[in-house]
Amino acid sequence: MSNKSQKAPNVKTEHAKTITPRNKDFSAWFLDVIAAADLADYAPVKGCMVIKPYGYAIWENIQKVLDAKFKETGVQNAYFPLLIPQSYLQREANHFKGFAPEIAVVTEAGGKKLEEPYVIRPTSETIIYAMFAKWVHSYRDLPLLINQWANIIRWEMRTRLFLRTTEFLWQEGHTAHTTEKEADDRALMMLKVYKNFAQDFLAMPVFAGTKSETEKFAGAVRTYCIEAMMQDGKALQVGTSHLLGQNFAKVFDLKFLDKEGKIFFAYNTCWGVSTRLIGGLIMAHSDDKGLVLPPNIAPFPVVILPIWTNDEEKATVLAEAKKIAVQLKTKLDIQVKIDERDERLGVKIYEWEKKGVPVRVEIGPKDLAKQTVMLARRDEDGKKAVENNVLMEYIKKILGEIQANLYNRALRFRDEHVFKAASYKEFQEKIENGFVNAFWCGQAECEIKIKEETKATVRCLLFDAKKESGRCILCGKPAEKKVIFAKAY
Amino acid sequence: MSNKSQKAPNVKTEHAKTITPRNKDFSAWFLDVIAAADLADYAPVKGCMVIKPYGYAIWENIQKVLDAKFKETGVQNAYFPLLIPQSYLQREANHFKGFAPEIAVVTEAGGKKLEEPYVIRPTSETIIYAMFAKWVHSYRDLPLLINQWANIIRWEMRTRLFLRTTEFLWQEGHTAHTTEKEADDRALMMLKVYKNFAQDFLAMPVFAGTKSETEKFAGAVRTYCIEAMMQDGKALQVGTSHLLGQNFAKVFDLKFLDKEGKIFFAYNTCWGVSTRLIGGLIMAHSDDKGLVLPPNIAPFPVVILPIWTNDEEKATVLAEAKKIAVQLKTKLDIQVKIDERDERLGVKIYEWEKKGVPVRVEIGPKDLAKQTVMLARRDEDGKKAVENNVLMEYIKKILGEIQANLYNRALRFRDEHVFKAASYKEFQEKIENGFVNAFWCGQAECEIKIKEETKATVRCLLFDAKKESGRCILCGKPAEKKVIFAKAY
Repeated sequence: MSNKSQKAPNVKTEHAKTITPRNKDFSAWFLDVIAAADLADYAPVKGCMVIKPYGYAIWENIQKVLDAKFKETGVQNAYFPLLIPQSYLQREANHFKGFAPEIAVVTEAGGKKLEEPYVIRPTSETIIYAMFAKWVHSYRDLPLLINQWANIIRWEMRTRLFLRTTEFLWQEGHTAHTTEKEADDRALMMLKVYKNFAQDFLAMPVFAGTKSETEKFAGAVRTYCIEAMMQDGKALQVGTSHLLGQNFAKVFDLKFLDKEGKIFFAYNTCWGVSTRLIGGLIMAHSDDKGLVLPPNIAPFPVVILPIWTNDEEKATVLAEAKKIAVQLKTKLDIQVKIDERDERLGVKIYEWEKKGVPVRVEIGPKDLAKQTVMLARRDEDGKKAVENNVLMEYIKKILGEIQANLYNRALRFRDEHVFKAASYKEFQEKIENGFVNAFWCGQAECEIKIKEETKATVRCLLFDAKKESGRCILCGKPAEKKVIFAKAY
Repeated sequence: MSNKSQKAPNVKTEHAKTITPRNKDFSAWFLDVIAAADLADYAPVKGCMVIKPYGYAIWENIQKVLDAKFKETGVQNAYFPLLIPQSYLQREANHFKGFAPEIAVVTEAGGKKLEEPYVIRPTSETIIYAMFAKWVHSYRDLPLLINQWANIIRWEMRTRLFLRTTEFLWQEGHTAHTTEKEADDRALMMLKVYKNFAQDFLAMPVFAGTKSETEKFAGAVRTYCIEAMMQDGKALQVGTSHLLGQNFAKVFDLKFLDKEGKIFFAYNTCWGVSTRLIGGLIMAHSDDKGLVLPPNIAPFPVVILPIWTNDEEKATVLAEAKKIAVQLKTKLDIQVKIDERDERLGVKIYEWEKKGVPVRVEIGPKDLAKQTVMLARRDEDGKKAVENNVLMEYIKKILGEIQANLYNRALRFRDEHVFKAASYKEFQEKIENGFVNAFWCGQAECEIKIKEETKATVRCLLFDAKKESGRCILCGKPAEKKVIFAKAY
């Protein structure tokens, strides 16, 4: 048995066969990367996907990190029903208007037509605040800080794997407070959790700010968001948090007695991220060879490829591979995959490149004799020999470097693709290649007209925008702040 | 401020107010325990519940332990759609017959009537094996070992919190193999995982065996199960694993090429446990004071109650409480809750008893002066002083003792309630108070008649049943093995 290739395979050609280059067709590239990395598959259900094990392992890591961060802030998990009485959804008028076109309705169950149909949750405000109203009596019961990990159905017209699917997985946090200030602080706190997570784990620089009135969540007083730039210059809304004010409290009678015994409506917030994050992760970092994963979110940041030409060699290199894997796990808490398959080295390299594993370690009999391994990083070309006695520190160091490099690369790309525009004509040109940071008068009419003409929307009113004096990019009326415009997913 | 009670509250009386005694009305007691421990609430959706934070934390612990155990055996998680085309469910005739009466159907979505209705998954064999058929080409793709954590809808007529709800949470493992032997081994392996989990974490002794033909899963060749005895003598099916043979492979065309290039249908297994486990946990151990949790599955096995009469005392006892909590977490990896609320001690004791926390530690100024704490265990009455310098070892030891005690208590109870029966008349008497281990001829007619007359079913054909010579408890025909009969949830 031999798994060593006589000749390095022509990797370029093989890649070219399966992955469309980004600059040729970004959408096709995105789907090719998903297929090549085996992250997800189309399901025989309109607009739905199957999340395959490697894709789901990324979601599990996202869940694990975020769940711990939520709990650190005092949030507890709970679970609310999938089905919502249709009348509940209708109670908050704006909310219903926003979601009505996308709902899936259960009209029959247990062999009978239902008297009142149920809606499959497109989001759970209505059922959750109805329950909060049962649980909250006095200020002592507040704040109530709840999160649920759940599946959601929204009947979308155009779907795309991970980015927009009829069913998706998400978490939705829902809180209730005694004052609007406390609720607003919570909404901002959770946005910060998302922002730090995107930056530190997904290696994704994000703009943080407030949505315009047109773009805010159906039923919210105010929506905060983080927005990332994809490699085609388009924006992806990565996470949102919403100050709901008393909108839902009033329709679901969510009231509390204060210390003086007076009755007030509570203030709510909600906040969520979804499996869409995985779509963002792909479009932010991956290349024409396939997926590129930041080490901090990769299911296994290191893959070891043992090389052998006979059974004796196989035994010794496998033993060494296992030794290194155990060291990485126990000393550095790093998950490792050993690819023991009886396959050519070139085939294995090609596969793990497509799957975006940050660090690849190759060990053959010659390396073993020299007490070295060959090490390659996914974010750079080439490989180099590393001595065994420094391997642990070296891997730790380069995992950190890769994480930082992916972030800095994405930040550099974003910096190069956030444009200014002196005129609407220039705006129309620039918006085809990235974000435009331009003055806007604040009127919905201008926002809507810009959207009609360029497909770009106001992505966010940056928290840290300077107060300036300028003129709206469309109507020329006075404006005080620039906002981020972009075409978005 | 003082949280020290002048007089111990009359706990008996208070309990009596909220929790119906077991021997008075077991069903009412069960629901009272859930309410008193704040585990779940009724939802405004037929037969659905809201799993509240404390109940959900138990489910998270169940998930965490089982998920790791599954992965140790090579299983990977994935996610499949909630909605299943109705035609898929219909393909395997027995499967459809079993689930058709309980399905919820989506007939409208996105504002339109659907051409083909979707069924909300009552279980996912059909959608999963349809996907497996896309993924499996050769023997190299097998075994395929997949699990999903998901929500399920079954339109039940009579529902009860945790035990039988229209929606419930579960995991469903689905595997595909090249041989029936390998599939059968996998089904038995996963049953063993469940059995060990029930015994080691839930402190629940279980009978393991095979279901009768009448009781097997709709679409299975053979069903294995573990069955536990509740404190009313009734059985709860805690977990099942199924050898599906080629039943689903044939209807979904799940085939593989073997080494010689011949085409065969694959063999499948599936296996699952659900939030029903929490219902079992309650009915196996709890008492008239409320919930009793085994330490190995409790959200926090230790609660610390600081006692103070003024702010200065509060500061010192809280500091000591925090010190102990940190030690428990860092040295023993034990989760701890400190109850800092400004409430009477009696109120706090009463609450944590109802919530079943295994160990309660009380620290007041007098204890602090003596360098001791007062310690109480939930499974026994009374409390005792423990010196601070041995506290860690002591808590570790008694958590182990409580875990063992709950298991042994449940085992003793079960041993006392598994009866023999010399006649059908005796069978009818004994079955009212527990399980009956009796000869059965193996004919479905006898099984059905016994069920009609006594409501008892064949719970399982024990793996370790001796081969004996006897006569069927109902018809008197020759029988070779005794089986476990019981009324079941």
